[in-house]
Amino acid sequence: MVPAIRIPASAATRARNLLRTVQYTHPPSCPCHSNPNHHHHHPRSPTLTDHVRRHMATPTDPSREKEYAFEMAASSIRFGPGSTKEVGMDFANMRAKRVCVVTDSNVAKLDAMKQAIEGLSREGIEFTVFDKVRVEPKDSSVKEAIAFAKPYQPDAFLAVGGGSVIDTAKLMNLYTAYPEADFLDFVNAPLGKGLPVERALKPLVAVPTTAGTGSETTGTAIFDLVSKRAKTGIAHRNLKPTLGICDPINTRTMPSAVHASSGLDVLCHSLESWTAIPYNERTPRPTNPINRPAYQGANPISDIFSLQALRDTVKYLPRAVKDPDDFEAQSKMLLAATLAGVGFGNAGVHLCHGMSYPISSQNPGYKHAGYDVDHPIIPHGVSVAVTAPAVFRFTAASNPDRHLAAAEAFGVDITNVKRESAGEVLGEALARFLSELGDQPLGLKNLGFKSADIEGLVEGTLPQKRVLMLAPNLNSEIEAEKDELRGLLEESLTY
Amino acid sequence: MVPAIRIPASAATRARNLLRTVQYTHPPSCPCHSNPNHHHHHPRSPTLTDHVRRHMATPTDPSREKEYAFEMAASSIRFGPGSTKEVGMDFANMRAKRVCVVTDSNVAKLDAMKQAIEGLSREGIEFTVFDKVRVEPKDSSVKEAIAFAKPYQPDAFLAVGGGSVIDTAKLMNLYTAYPEADFLDFVNAPLGKGLPVERALKPLVAVPTTAGTGSETTGTAIFDLVSKRAKTGIAHRNLKPTLGICDPINTRTMPSAVHASSGLDVLCHSLESWTAIPYNERTPRPTNPINRPAYQGANPISDIFSLQALRDTVKYLPRAVKDPDDFEAQSKMLLAATLAGVGFGNAGVHLCHGMSYPISSQNPGYKHAGYDVDHPIIPHGVSVAVTAPAVFRFTAASNPDRHLAAAEAFGVDITNVKRESAGEVLGEALARFLSELGDQPLGLKNLGFKSADIEGLVEGTLPQKRVLMLAPNLNSEIEAEKDELRGLLEESLTY
Repeated sequence: MVPAIRIPASAATRARNLLRTVQYTHPPSCPCHSNPNHHHHHPRSPTLTDHVRRHMATPTDPSREKEYAFEMAASSIRFGPGSTKEVGMDFANMRAKRVCVVTDSNVAKLDAMKQAIEGLSREGIEFTVFDKVRVEPKDSSVKEAIAFAKPYQPDAFLAVGGGSVIDTAKLMNLYTAYPEADFLDFVNAPLGKGLPVERALKPLVAVPTTAGTGSETTGTAIFDLVSKRAKTGIAHRNLKPTLGICDPINTRTMPSAVHASSGLDVLCHSLESWTAIPYNERTPRPTNPINRPAYQGANPISDIFSLQALRDTVKYLPRAVKDPDDFEAQSKMLLAATLAGVGFGNAGVHLCHGMSYPISSQNPGYKHAGYDVDHPIIPHGVSVAVTAPAVFRFTAASNPDRHLAAAEAFGVDITNVKRESAGEVLGEALARFLSELGDQPLGLKNLGFKSADIEGLVEGTLPQKRVLMLAPNLNSEIEAEKDELRGLLEESLTY
Repeated sequence: MVPAIRIPASAATRARNLLRTVQYTHPPSCPCHSNPNHHHHHPRSPTLTDHVRRHMATPTDPSREKEYAFEMAASSIRFGPGSTKEVGMDFANMRAKRVCVVTDSNVAKLDAMKQAIEGLSREGIEFTVFDKVRVEPKDSSVKEAIAFAKPYQPDAFLAVGGGSVIDTAKLMNLYTAYPEADFLDFVNAPLGKGLPVERALKPLVAVPTTAGTGSETTGTAIFDLVSKRAKTGIAHRNLKPTLGICDPINTRTMPSAVHASSGLDVLCHSLESWTAIPYNERTPRPTNPINRPAYQGANPISDIFSLQALRDTVKYLPRAVKDPDDFEAQSKMLLAATLAGVGFGNAGVHLCHGMSYPISSQNPGYKHAGYDVDHPIIPHGVSVAVTAPAVFRFTAASNPDRHLAAAEAFGVDITNVKRESAGEVLGEALARFLSELGDQPLGLKNLGFKSADIEGLVEGTLPQKRVLMLAPNLNSEIEAEKDELRGLLEESLTY
């Protein structure tokens, strides 16, 4: 055990934020400089070889060292109206002989599945269809899917559907490659063991039918771990699909309410990854690159994707929601979902997503308009966006310039806005955007939550370590962290 | 054979440009609309199913149909100072047991190789080193490299070096996977057969030591085909490395002149891919996705990379050239080279690159300052950039807005610039940039070319079909095309 240096949390936060601002705006000319612990053994005018030797030889504790590298991985993406029908040729090109097709009972009836199946048939490829994916998967539904795949021994997977379908297919692929593994082996720590995925999985082609999760490009799979009463998942870049086929014809089938809520997921993916802590502030530095998490913090490549996705979402989501015939807006939203997927898939999300899981699962009985289901439902995008105005007001101090750039993406003229007001301005822009989008609950109260429910939501957020660690400005001391989460949820009750 | 419709070339060009401007600015709401040949069988208010059926059932000639999809593929990228030393763990993680390390005799002595070799040794991985890569490879040097790799039967490749090294490693990987293939099988048509790469190749990790080619992210390998007296290559996305490790410590060894010329390659990669014809104007539409070229034309994802790389190059290249201790600028240029690699690797380059090949190979005897070689040399980046002012003056009419955006990236205030002046303004900005960078030949005359040499350069450019087909505004009628190339080269004699 290494003795940790204890300094008062608020001072630590201030120091950290100052450092962060300085470093991210003015990248140090040498990686050593980015870690204050290094300064004491840093000679003046070191030579390159000195640097390299120090990196190689200095005995340091990686758990206290900050990250020095980032890694960008994304599925290949094909984008084009009508491209679904190419999927049979893709499997033929990769010499696949037994394909496990994964979908849900709704998508099974849609044209996207028809195109995919016809494509496979035309190439004479043997396949079987699993159409029992549960929307918002639970560990039990995932296990059922895995039990289906194992005896079939597919040499490739095809997922046709939304995020639930694609995520379930990733898990079927993972556990057929590790037939002896315990289900918790790969589940995110601390709920599971969080082991890295070292084996090569089978090719997975994902055909999204919603413009939201970006799951076609990421190595993330989310599900409810019922025994632990927590929404969690498995995340490793080796889980990512081989190819995502983004065919905007396939998202035309989404009802307007689904356009809206899945688009709000895109909005928060882009905003959260754009404002996540920088990768070179994340600890610990992994000792083996396979342990470098996909959720590694904001980095210069994820930034490009996240900001572009944000701009496109602000521009096209309202159009896609309001006009079911606006095919251009729908296409742009599918592209934005994928771009945001690359962004957050390599940077991560933080507070909106962290709090969304208990918001969805502790639903007091709200049923979102436009969702044709027989049970209460807070769609994922709605549960994510409802805290967004409060979250970005809170995180703005960590990096006012980024928050101002985000406000500018919402059309705010930031010429005369002071950096101290970045959070206020972005929070206001977000609240206005949600209000103008229509049919959105403007606050947790409209979802049926009361002040007395806040404590349960705080407790339900705490286990989301993997995303909370990327939250800028959040206190790492547990009671202070709870205070901050409580504050964010209270502020989100109504606006 | 399909009878081609013949209309006067200039009218065709005008019509094509008009159509292009309209389509790229206002994407059609249905893919059918993008092809005027389709209009006659397009009913009013077609249903979605009608559309899909038409796509499936209408007998059409794909060679005349325009592309309707684009595909984005890039290597995983790891970026960080000191990350080279991780490469041994990467091979251990992928269970590699026999690694073929590829480099050249110069890089073999550098710290980058030392770090890589130490990394492999630390993990106890068996490897062999081929250090005879020729800078600016020829088919003979490539064949020698392949002959080295075949009997060793590596299960993975590691390339440490510049573009020549990484390209050679790609070809070693390709032909050891196809031991029976004829060398010309995969070489770009019309010089070779241009067959697609269908087999899975071995993992290739690329560690660039220059910030220029972006080869660590692309599926392209370039070499001289001596028998045909042409610079050509092999391009297929399955050639791309598994992982590119971009370690900015490795580019510190570049002399200032190499920073400059490799940076000019980045500049042109980004400008050419940003201004290449849009993917949905390219013909023919492939009948099998494996035949969709990597050089597919500008698309919404390549655009993001290309424009960002352009901005970063304009900002950081002058600093990297002028101050050998400006590690921040060098890092940013390595990142820009990689971003531009993703951009042009999925969109393509056009006229500057097309003309650069004969400019380099028909060198009248110029030896670039700062290159320590015993023979005349026009570095690749120099031969590419020398025609850039003329090229973008010429291409601007195809898409004035993009050319204005590029001029803006050079710091030009475009507020009051008319769209008709886009080419003039961008050409001027480029000439100024080259002049201020220092030590650049401002025109072909400074390289020793005379008016009488132009015809040879025109003839040497014509075989570069793969890139010329992406040139906006270029006439497809052969004599008119030659006139246009002649005009560009004459305009590039001096400025």
